[in-house]
Amino acid sequence: MTGPATPPSGGPSHASADGPPAGGAGAPVLAVDIGGTKLAAALVEPDGRVAAYDRVATPGGADVGAEELWRVLEGLLDTLVSDAGDPPLAGVGTGCGGPMTWPAAEVSPLNIPAWRNGFPLRARLRDRYPGLPVRIHNDAICVAIAEHWLGAGRGRDNVLGMVVSTGVGGGLILGGRLVNGASGNAGHIGHIVVEPDGPPCGCGGRGCLEAVARGPGLVAWARERGWRPQSPEATGVELAADARDGHPVAAAAMRRAGRAIGIAIASATHLCDLEVAAIGGGLSQTGPLLFEPMAEAFREHARMEFARRLRIVPAALGQTAGLVGAAALVFAQDRYWSAG
Amino acid sequence: MTGPATPPSGGPSHASADGPPAGGAGAPVLAVDIGGTKLAAALVEPDGRVAAYDRVATPGGADVGAEELWRVLEGLLDTLVSDAGDPPLAGVGTGCGGPMTWPAAEVSPLNIPAWRNGFPLRARLRDRYPGLPVRIHNDAICVAIAEHWLGAGRGRDNVLGMVVSTGVGGGLILGGRLVNGASGNAGHIGHIVVEPDGPPCGCGGRGCLEAVARGPGLVAWARERGWRPQSPEATGVELAADARDGHPVAAAAMRRAGRAIGIAIASATHLCDLEVAAIGGGLSQTGPLLFEPMAEAFREHARMEFARRLRIVPAALGQTAGLVGAAALVFAQDRYWSAG
Repeated sequence: MTGPATPPSGGPSHASADGPPAGGAGAPVLAVDIGGTKLAAALVEPDGRVAAYDRVATPGGADVGAEELWRVLEGLLDTLVSDAGDPPLAGVGTGCGGPMTWPAAEVSPLNIPAWRNGFPLRARLRDRYPGLPVRIHNDAICVAIAEHWLGAGRGRDNVLGMVVSTGVGGGLILGGRLVNGASGNAGHIGHIVVEPDGPPCGCGGRGCLEAVARGPGLVAWARERGWRPQSPEATGVELAADARDGHPVAAAAMRRAGRAIGIAIASATHLCDLEVAAIGGGLSQTGPLLFEPMAEAFREHARMEFARRLRIVPAALGQTAGLVGAAALVFAQDRYWSAG
Repeated sequence: MTGPATPPSGGPSHASADGPPAGGAGAPVLAVDIGGTKLAAALVEPDGRVAAYDRVATPGGADVGAEELWRVLEGLLDTLVSDAGDPPLAGVGTGCGGPMTWPAAEVSPLNIPAWRNGFPLRARLRDRYPGLPVRIHNDAICVAIAEHWLGAGRGRDNVLGMVVSTGVGGGLILGGRLVNGASGNAGHIGHIVVEPDGPPCGCGGRGCLEAVARGPGLVAWARERGWRPQSPEATGVELAADARDGHPVAAAAMRRAGRAIGIAIASATHLCDLEVAAIGGGLSQTGPLLFEPMAEAFREHARMEFARRLRIVPAALGQTAGLVGAAALVFAQDRYWSAG
């Protein structure tokens, strides 16, 4: 779908590969969100409003080549921008599944076979949009940025943003600024260890939050205990729906996930002294079945006064959060972009 | 003991309560380290060298009042400074056991009964040293600062400093700067949850690293399994000595502590993308009996490439690290002091 293409006001485009936003006052950022199921793009205004939006399914299958995927992405972006009347752009901000080198953003997303062996995404976008700042970060980090910029963490300086879905990812804002760490990989809340002898994790470790609480992990756990989904390809979303409908094993799976998330948040706030943890992603839409055990486990493990002050809240921005956060890499670079 | 009192060169003292170091080029910081067993003080030169040092046992017992403890501290500081020839001072930096309000530093250290109900340490030191910057932080944070400034984390931007002793504390440097968090409490690595159903912790929670790996916790664990210390008041240091001498239960206790520390460091580096974890405190002197299981557990849980790059090293600065870090609150305020 394409939203109404509000023609952004904007002056002439200025070359500014790594400086402040280009395109003149009011120019939008071309925001891109690259995931395993869809490629999404938007024109995002300086106030964070999504003025135009489009998406396509990510071409899947082992026979899709790296260049074929790139051409699909180019087509999506070209159509979006030309439908909007080819406005001058302030820059290009992109969220993409990890891992990636950072800030060079040679990406090798686990869930996109065509690029799994590495694709020079930032270099290609720079060639495609010469003179514009092009900035790329992990997709979960972009969601966390959006929640801090305009969502559930707005106005707070110490915020953890989380995405609980097929994987468990996140981003960390401390002292009002995005934490990148040594290699741009800070924010991997999904790999806080919550059960030292727990299930093996896709990272190669064991007992990580992601191994316990990711949708497919919960589905497998519930199947082993007698949950019979309607569809053979059952996901965490179907499990969550059954939990809401009162299926006891499905509800127990949500409880298991919620408690694991609560423990990981307790560890994170002890280490980082946080004010807000904002929880998004598909599973977070389960509501109290997930949030109540989360709060319960957090209360049991976070007893010191400073830690008890943390507020755990649902993410506020919904499906376009990743695009809004990608735009903030350009619009709010003082807080969210410290690299060249 | 008092070290050789090198008379620091230094110009006239300038009033500068919260600005840059006072006292002119070369003036030392009066550094203070307040703990449950001793009060220590030093004159620390701008290059981090400890030019004069003295300490007294912390007056213990339920009958010691707050003002009595303060007078003992005042006496220690007065003697140190006058023995050094009353040099102009660049400021006063202090590490103190937590908890405390921060940056106001009304302290209420768990292990100092005289001040447990709160003592306005920063206000009192400001009254005592008018016109000088007076800065106070958690004692474990001061150790972490010292290790980043001049020790095992020098030259790295993303460092966790840990103290493993009667408690387990720490401090976090990210992007080259000390992380304070919302209330100055960032760095509580001792309260990362390493065994969700583990032993109760002094913080009120359960299964924290500190509950597992603090000296008294290890002593209790080893006693339950047949370790018979020579002294009835056995500490982690005696346990560590027995472990080195080949006592199997004592060695198993060290292994248990080391693995718990390794798991907590894996969680911390996944969240913060660290380069160095520097481990100090009494128990860290056990050497390989602690560090080998620590490295083993870390390797099992930290498998992603960015996390595997972390180096776990012994702290480099020894007993005076807390004093050196307290001095850095004044000398290197751009990195370690963001408050008023």
